[in-house]
Amino acid sequence: MADTGWPGCARGLKGVVLDMCGVLYDSGGGDGIAVPGSIEAVEALKASDLQLRFCTNETQATREKFVAKLQRLGFDISVPEVFSPAPAATAVLKERGLRPHLLVYDGVLPEFDSVDKTNPNCVVIGDAAENFSYENLNEAFRVLIGLEKPVLFSLGKGRYYKETDGLKLDVGAYMKALEYACDLEAEVIGKPSTVFFQSVLNDMGLQPHEVMMIGDDLVNDVGGAQHCGMKGVQVRTGKYRPSDERHPTVTADGTVDNLAQAVNMILSQRGH
Amino acid sequence: MADTGWPGCARGLKGVVLDMCGVLYDSGGGDGIAVPGSIEAVEALKASDLQLRFCTNETQATREKFVAKLQRLGFDISVPEVFSPAPAATAVLKERGLRPHLLVYDGVLPEFDSVDKTNPNCVVIGDAAENFSYENLNEAFRVLIGLEKPVLFSLGKGRYYKETDGLKLDVGAYMKALEYACDLEAEVIGKPSTVFFQSVLNDMGLQPHEVMMIGDDLVNDVGGAQHCGMKGVQVRTGKYRPSDERHPTVTADGTVDNLAQAVNMILSQRGH
Repeated sequence: MADTGWPGCARGLKGVVLDMCGVLYDSGGGDGIAVPGSIEAVEALKASDLQLRFCTNETQATREKFVAKLQRLGFDISVPEVFSPAPAATAVLKERGLRPHLLVYDGVLPEFDSVDKTNPNCVVIGDAAENFSYENLNEAFRVLIGLEKPVLFSLGKGRYYKETDGLKLDVGAYMKALEYACDLEAEVIGKPSTVFFQSVLNDMGLQPHEVMMIGDDLVNDVGGAQHCGMKGVQVRTGKYRPSDERHPTVTADGTVDNLAQAVNMILSQRGH
Repeated sequence: MADTGWPGCARGLKGVVLDMCGVLYDSGGGDGIAVPGSIEAVEALKASDLQLRFCTNETQATREKFVAKLQRLGFDISVPEVFSPAPAATAVLKERGLRPHLLVYDGVLPEFDSVDKTNPNCVVIGDAAENFSYENLNEAFRVLIGLEKPVLFSLGKGRYYKETDGLKLDVGAYMKALEYACDLEAEVIGKPSTVFFQSVLNDMGLQPHEVMMIGDDLVNDVGGAQHCGMKGVQVRTGKYRPSDERHPTVTADGTVDNLAQAVNMILSQRGH
């Protein structure tokens, strides 16, 4: 019988999905800084027989700009390997014939260049930062409340995040505001949405039980992946908190100090 | 046995509580405009043996300025007769030794003059309108998340309201955003909170079943008053919508065209 525990379960893996911020690098002034050992860990995974994808809830830049930043930090990574909410949203919008009113960060707007935005019949919000002004929020609200069937997409549902000048409300808070005002439930695109993880699995052509997600966010990375049938391992870098290891509803399959240790253990199990 | 239906129940009343906006007047350019017949209806109630109080969720002006506006419109009304969330909040803050960080409309700030605001240990939000900026929301959030026991007061919990230039998100939406980000539940001060209605009853020295609330908001006026044991009658002015008369959870004790009709029916029952 297959070992389903950590790290024994690594023997049955065919693919690995890595979260980015907090696992590969820490953000901050300029491009941020690589987590020690993570550049080599990505190299080691690429040299193995495992498929590799990257999965982020980053919505402040296009994938192209985001990947260029990671490359400058020294990572061997390319755009088609990276899954982020904005391109996923673009696909959903086209599939369903929806024309969005966008309340997102300016840097991510080019991801929506190919989408018809005339006469909007839905609203898409991302972490818009300074664009979450009183006026812009009211405008998004008025579009929604004016629709016969209001549809709200939220690129992720984070509560808050930390920047160099302090904590900031994340998109999830604004999602809740619009949900309440319009008496509706938003569709979340990004982690921890099952649809989002499934799109990564589809791209790899693998079954959930053949894939492991490694992230620093217990609920969105680990819990989201597990909910989808994947294995989920948490690293003690980024937004990890010791209290995560006694979380009431989510228990990681494994917890490791950092990505380097995770990859080392995975590859050891596979006889590398 | 006492008649508990409308309008028969009016015979057992000892007091009436009136909502203001949408019942006494409609807002809009300048002071707004009195609802036809409502000035005379207030006069008739004052000439009767019924006690009369006014109860509003207005949080954009001090009671003094708000009452002055109503007086200019022609209403016989004075400050001690008016119950609004800000003075109620001030009382709660003092009672519990809480020092607020305020995110409210500038016009209502003087209501909090007598409250110690140094080194805040709670947050109070009202309908802050333009003050609901990205920066101010983050600041309120940072105060809350930094507290050992975060306490959030919300002056009302409205979803949205209409101004001459369109619909605006009301304080309830921002309350939900902060609740989600901080994983807490706000304490609502104002309608439909039972504590708020109870403070009006205490001031009148009456029992709930002796008092009738008349308002245009089915959930916050009628439902809130009924939840408290009072009678609740809805007027078909202000924010009334025909769908209110088949609302899934709240059924008014009576529905009338306007305040004049309600008062006429109440006083007829009492043999005036």
